[in-house]
Amino acid sequence: MTVIYVVTTGGTIDKVYSEQQGVVANVESKIDRYLRLLRLPDTEVRVVPLMNIDSLDMTDSDRARILETVKGLLPEKAPILITHGTDTMVETGLYLQRGLPKLDVPIVMTGAMAPLGFEGSDALQNLTESLFALRLLPAGIYLVSHNQVFPISNVRKDRTLGRFVRIEENSAK
Amino acid sequence: MTVIYVVTTGGTIDKVYSEQQGVVANVESKIDRYLRLLRLPDTEVRVVPLMNIDSLDMTDSDRARILETVKGLLPEKAPILITHGTDTMVETGLYLQRGLPKLDVPIVMTGAMAPLGFEGSDALQNLTESLFALRLLPAGIYLVSHNQVFPISNVRKDRTLGRFVRIEENSAK
Amino acid sequence: MTVIYVVTTGGTIDKVYSEQQGVVANVESKIDRYLRLLRLPDTEVRVVPLMNIDSLDMTDSDRARILETVKGLLPEKAPILITHGTDTMVETGLYLQRGLPKLDVPIVMTGAMAPLGFEGSDALQNLTESLFALRLLPAGIYLVSHNQVFPISNVRKDRTLGRFVRIEENSAK
Amino acid sequence: MTVIYVVTTGGTIDKVYSEQQGVVANVESKIDRYLRLLRLPDTEVRVVPLMNIDSLDMTDSDRARILETVKGLLPEKAPILITHGTDTMVETGLYLQRGLPKLDVPIVMTGAMAPLGFEGSDALQNLTESLFALRLLPAGIYLVSHNQVFPISNVRKDRTLGRFVRIEENSAK
Repeated sequence: MTVIYVVTTGGTIDKVYSEQQGVVANVESKIDRYLRLLRLPDTEVRVVPLMNIDSLDMTDSDRARILETVKGLLPEKAPILITHGTDTMVETGLYLQRGLPKLDVPIVMTGAMAPLGFEGSDALQNLTESLFALRLLPAGIYLVSHNQVFPISNVRKDRTLGRFVRIEENSAK
Repeated sequence: MTVIYVVTTGGTIDKVYSEQQGVVANVESKIDRYLRLLRLPDTEVRVVPLMNIDSLDMTDSDRARILETVKGLLPEKAPILITHGTDTMVETGLYLQRGLPKLDVPIVMTGAMAPLGFEGSDALQNLTESLFALRLLPAGIYLVSHNQVFPISNVRKDRTLGRFVRIEENSAK
Repeated sequence: MTVIYVVTTGGTIDKVYSEQQGVVANVESKIDRYLRLLRLPDTEVRVVPLMNIDSLDMTDSDRARILETVKGLLPEKAPILITHGTDTMVETGLYLQRGLPKLDVPIVMTGAMAPLGFEGSDALQNLTESLFALRLLPAGIYLVSHNQVFPISNVRKDRTLGRFVRIEENSAK
Repeated sequence: MTVIYVVTTGGTIDKVYSEQQGVVANVESKIDRYLRLLRLPDTEVRVVPLMNIDSLDMTDSDRARILETVKGLLPEKAPILITHGTDTMVETGLYLQRGLPKLDVPIVMTGAMAPLGFEGSDALQNLTESLFALRLLPAGIYLVSHNQVFPISNVRKDRTLGRFVRIEENSAK
């Protein structure tokens, strides 16, 4: 049985439609509910609901909390999935890369262009791919989305295309 | 073969999630696509995509267009379904009641608290019920939602409950 | 609050896919689970799971049990939905018509061509329509399916079309 | 743009519910339709619908056809996904392993315990994982299912558990 940690931070993947207000918003994490739709007989998923915010609102203090949480999990030597808004996912990933010691496990970041459970959403696809990626990838920080895997230093979001694309070297901001 | 007209005016039922902007919005009608999920062997549905707006933005001029459209369809002697935002659905229904001549067919108004295709949405349920109601109801203007049918003069939206409730007489605004 | 009884007897609508055996079969009723997907704020649904069999296997003794169950519910003066396999649904309906006293409430029979939860299924549509029909129909026994309502004496299954069609008078078998 | 071949051979993953006969059966491949639900911006999927049979009915002659088809694709140097019934998937995989020359690309076999589009099915999960696996795995023949990857020599189906499990060495039958 492989243990995998899933640290949820919010983002579109985890938004719900608020009937009262007619908007999509980060209210309470639903990733756990959707993980139960997957068959993971050899995997024990431990969900850590850390925060639930739009990644455009994510502050340095939020990123510091994510870093501390991941650092705290490293002694478990278990792969880690971080769900995150797509807009600043790379920024947080590079922040983790600068702040973390040499890794023994893969860390995968993922998110979605449309929330879990919305028609045509890419969210469950990205979750499925990310959990699978953690079984195969070597130690390091990656972004997984839309059947692609990128080292965190080689990726940026293309807002026009609505997806991530490979770049040469991602200078830490 | 029974002919039914479906006049779409927008509202939550017809909203889509915009990945570029991260909001739900009335962009293009998708009701036609969802009607194709239903089996209607004895019914010919003719969709009239009239406008696609949030009902809070609906003006008197918009209501006049709906009234003229419905008037134009009455000679067909076919039942009419009007999809509409829930916030001012009753207001439009009462406007139609004042403006239309004595009816030979039922007119049903419906909408939804969550868009078609969103997890947990009531939209397809309300569409299914409304199409069925048109087969059974006598001439008149009704609101159909959540397994209930209301004469348009006896209904208001309860925002706290997130649904329609019966009232005594709806004084025309 | 309106009380509605749902008596489940099996049929395709209630079949599940057995992964062990690779067949669809009547194992345990799932109608209750799908009813929870509908918004029924003004309706209290009481499910009576009576039997769970393919209607081709239904015997006179099974029909007698259905009749006794319905008879037992009549004093409640609540509308009754009976879910049933489509192949002998009309036969059971006519049996009930012969065996029941004059009714104060509508009794609706429904089923499906494909099980609840299978791609393209008509099952949730038929359930939604049937629950709605019970709010509008006068006392009597009806079959509701695919946006149509038939008095039980005026309907037969057309196997080639895969649906029910209207006939003149249904001579009791 | 990465080219991936998908050779479909049938099995539960590709079964449909036949409303006329009330059984699940291999009729026409629907994998193509479900692949369109996935976002694969960097991948060109070419579907080769080879046969559509229950893997318990698969003969040596069928396996020879699969082998010839895969051999014919090898010069393309593109990863290959083979969809297949679970009951004899390992047998076919070992047959391919004996018959194929040294590989330059990964070949992944997958299937499902329940058909695509059935409630609770594992089929789309397995397809998603398999397409992703083809991006990461080295040359060789693998079985991918339920968030696990097995070299074809180290796996067998456990009928009681309803899934694949790792074994030591799979002696070629």
